[in-house]
Amino acid sequence: MRTIFNADHRFHQSPGELLNGAYVPAFEKPERADLIRAEIERARLGEISAPQPYPLSKLTAIHDAGMIDLFQHAYAEWQEAGRSGGAIPFTFGTRGVREDRVPRCLDGKLAYYSFDAGTPITPTSWRAIKSSADTALTASSLITQGERSAFALCRPPGHHAGTDHYGGYCFLNNAAIAAQAMLGDGAARIAILDIDYHHGNGTQQIFYRRNDVLFVSIHGDPDAEFPYRLGFADETGAADGEGMNANYPLPLGTEWPAWSAALNHGLTRIQTYRPDIVIVSLGVDTYKHDPISQFRLEREHFTRIGERIASLARPTMFVMEGGYAVEDIGINVVNVLSGFETA
Amino acid sequence: MRTIFNADHRFHQSPGELLNGAYVPAFEKPERADLIRAEIERARLGEISAPQPYPLSKLTAIHDAGMIDLFQHAYAEWQEAGRSGGAIPFTFGTRGVREDRVPRCLDGKLAYYSFDAGTPITPTSWRAIKSSADTALTASSLITQGERSAFALCRPPGHHAGTDHYGGYCFLNNAAIAAQAMLGDGAARIAILDIDYHHGNGTQQIFYRRNDVLFVSIHGDPDAEFPYRLGFADETGAADGEGMNANYPLPLGTEWPAWSAALNHGLTRIQTYRPDIVIVSLGVDTYKHDPISQFRLEREHFTRIGERIASLARPTMFVMEGGYAVEDIGINVVNVLSGFETA
Repeated sequence: MRTIFNADHRFHQSPGELLNGAYVPAFEKPERADLIRAEIERARLGEISAPQPYPLSKLTAIHDAGMIDLFQHAYAEWQEAGRSGGAIPFTFGTRGVREDRVPRCLDGKLAYYSFDAGTPITPTSWRAIKSSADTALTASSLITQGERSAFALCRPPGHHAGTDHYGGYCFLNNAAIAAQAMLGDGAARIAILDIDYHHGNGTQQIFYRRNDVLFVSIHGDPDAEFPYRLGFADETGAADGEGMNANYPLPLGTEWPAWSAALNHGLTRIQTYRPDIVIVSLGVDTYKHDPISQFRLEREHFTRIGERIASLARPTMFVMEGGYAVEDIGINVVNVLSGFETA
Repeated sequence: MRTIFNADHRFHQSPGELLNGAYVPAFEKPERADLIRAEIERARLGEISAPQPYPLSKLTAIHDAGMIDLFQHAYAEWQEAGRSGGAIPFTFGTRGVREDRVPRCLDGKLAYYSFDAGTPITPTSWRAIKSSADTALTASSLITQGERSAFALCRPPGHHAGTDHYGGYCFLNNAAIAAQAMLGDGAARIAILDIDYHHGNGTQQIFYRRNDVLFVSIHGDPDAEFPYRLGFADETGAADGEGMNANYPLPLGTEWPAWSAALNHGLTRIQTYRPDIVIVSLGVDTYKHDPISQFRLEREHFTRIGERIASLARPTMFVMEGGYAVEDIGINVVNVLSGFETA
């Protein structure tokens, strides 16, 4: 399997995040991607190559242009105001405010587009954000050109980013951008399987009313876990997309047997849909030692996940999402990918 | 003029707030109310007495019961989770999430109800929050019992709190709770004049569709200033409340002549409505030395504001809102009140 990777991801380094009432060092950090890359090399999984640059139109096919503009220009305004660190909002969306206008000033725009204080725009973040989307787009073109599989080693991750909102360490929805590009390249049906510990609220929101992308997500019960406001089992899609969204919320503490049963359900849904291509939003924060998550998968389960996904027998693109137990992140990701390859 | 005050306000002390990308000491601090009280005493403005306790039904007449429950019980859960500081969210509302269900866990509830990270629920906050509402309710009963004026020295402030959302240092909307109580006590028409530097988004939202409360606000242009998402001139009320909301957004740097012209407009609106009672949401963060605001009123202008409000010749209740230049907060507030008294 070929991996697409670019060291430009290091241009995004969060100065910190708000958690449990304190401003703490960020869990989403550059070594995550570097350690995955090193393990891929060590395991000789396959060639690692750099992404091609794509035009912004590939991003605006999914996202609000004003939000993309914010990622590019927020920091200059932030700095001009004499501030340091990363550009983050100090107030946020709520009920009872206007949604029919985007505020004109920087703090207002940040408040409008962002839903947390843990996804800062630093002076160089845009270079990493764009590179991450290019990584997904480059991998997507390998698939549409006939490869059986590819791994987009994206960072920053993407699945919490919606059409016009960002947060949860995510700026652009790399998986959604790739899916849209594949549809443009001739695919008619895409299935996105999101196995990150957290619900992929952004991906769900983007495709919720469409019937060309099936979204299946297995994740911590949003009644107990981020993102809290989306990811329940009764969210099945709307309008043309009715029946095209499948959530499998699982209780905190879930171990392999229950997780694995949900995966089988999800794979059956995908099989029935008969997609041209499968995109896997790959988070390994389901791992038992993850510092901010509460599932209990073991290293070897990741191999079995890869094997099961291979049983779909579809061209498959893996897109990196979360996973914060850095000491084991490489082995867990490689286990999924090599499980898929050797199945 | 009688002042209602209770030292219980000190039970709310914020450990800090997020501003310009850093977690900084809170601007909304206990000495604000204590310094106002001291200046009232020094100026011999009138008797200072303690609030009476009111039943929770006076609060639920305006606010979501789940939010009030959160204020009372969030900290116990927060502490049980091994956390310190004040209970604040780490994620917030945005477009594309469900509004039809309140999350069940603490972090989800905080995310659902709060719109910033600067309004923490500490172990003893509820005592201050309740006392602040009781202060407004006690002052309101003085008015409905025939007093010409009263000052509710509320802290924490209230005008950013809506029916089911809180933030901007505000938990319960003291002015709205008082207005509702006055209506229950026989008043038919109330006018709320909000002269705090920031738009009173909560008060506007609460009464936006009603014709028994006129809301008039003079404030920093939300295209440049908190709360960013509400407070524009084209927000005039809806349904039964059409024409019952008047916003006067003014540019940053506004000085007395322009501010004063807006006040005259607003007072004319109120005069035309012929309210039984006027409630003034009194912020003195329009002062030129306020550390987080950008208008340029001088000390003596506050006296003139009081005189102008007196010209309405209506029973008038003042409710304390913002003002963060602590060294002059007492004199500026007393100038408004004594300007009113001596007019």
